[in-house]
Amino acid sequence: MTHWHLDARLADDTAPVCDLKLCEVRLMDDANHPWLVLVPKVDGAVEILDLSPAQRTQLSHEIDTAARALKTLFKPDKLNVAALGNLVPQLHVHVIARYTHDIAWPRPVWGAAHARPYTPEALVERVRLLHAQFPA
Amino acid sequence: MTHWHLDARLADDTAPVCDLKLCEVRLMDDANHPWLVLVPKVDGAVEILDLSPAQRTQLSHEIDTAARALKTLFKPDKLNVAALGNLVPQLHVHVIARYTHDIAWPRPVWGAAHARPYTPEALVERVRLLHAQFPA
Repeated sequence: MTHWHLDARLADDTAPVCDLKLCEVRLMDDANHPWLVLVPKVDGAVEILDLSPAQRTQLSHEIDTAARALKTLFKPDKLNVAALGNLVPQLHVHVIARYTHDIAWPRPVWGAAHARPYTPEALVERVRLLHAQFPA
Repeated sequence: MTHWHLDARLADDTAPVCDLKLCEVRLMDDANHPWLVLVPKVDGAVEILDLSPAQRTQLSHEIDTAARALKTLFKPDKLNVAALGNLVPQLHVHVIARYTHDIAWPRPVWGAAHARPYTPEALVERVRLLHAQFPA
């Protein structure tokens, strides 16, 4: 993992929430949806298949943790979990809380609406709430 | 698993490829994309979190198997893996081979283009090819 660094576009679009064993957990700066992005700190990984079996198991655990955090805090109608990477090749997994009344429902969130950045106050507060849901 | 049965809409939109330990593997009847759907045979499951830890591990293995099958057969530029379920609540995971020249690129496939059903001959042949990639 020595040479890994976060993709510049992901860094621009997200704020840090916490650092897990495998993944950096980031909040998408889009107040339309409670939306986490998990980025495995594995140099050169593009597909889930690029991870080792142990890393894939760990990724699965960390996705569960992120999903549980969103479920606890936001009580969504549905969770969306996806590894797409069509625009940003660095492997990353979206975990998104969806509501039947959200701006994109029932469509997937990508490309459905312009991102609505948080105010600095709202961003800090949301990161604080989320951070507290992850193991120390 | 006694009472599980495949959601009617998934049944309509897909063809059976094979039956794994946890999931039924189905081919989306859309010749625009090599597109598998994995449906865990767990009654009432909507979210990945509804599965037991052992089932989640198995799901992760079966997603890997499906991803490898698509990679081997279709040599895609990217794989897309997603559990959305905004339209069909029964838990199902999409595993899709994407190309930079496909009809939806770089957008996600959902809602991007009308499905283009396979001819019966093409469907049978594709199912045969895919079936051979899964463990007997």
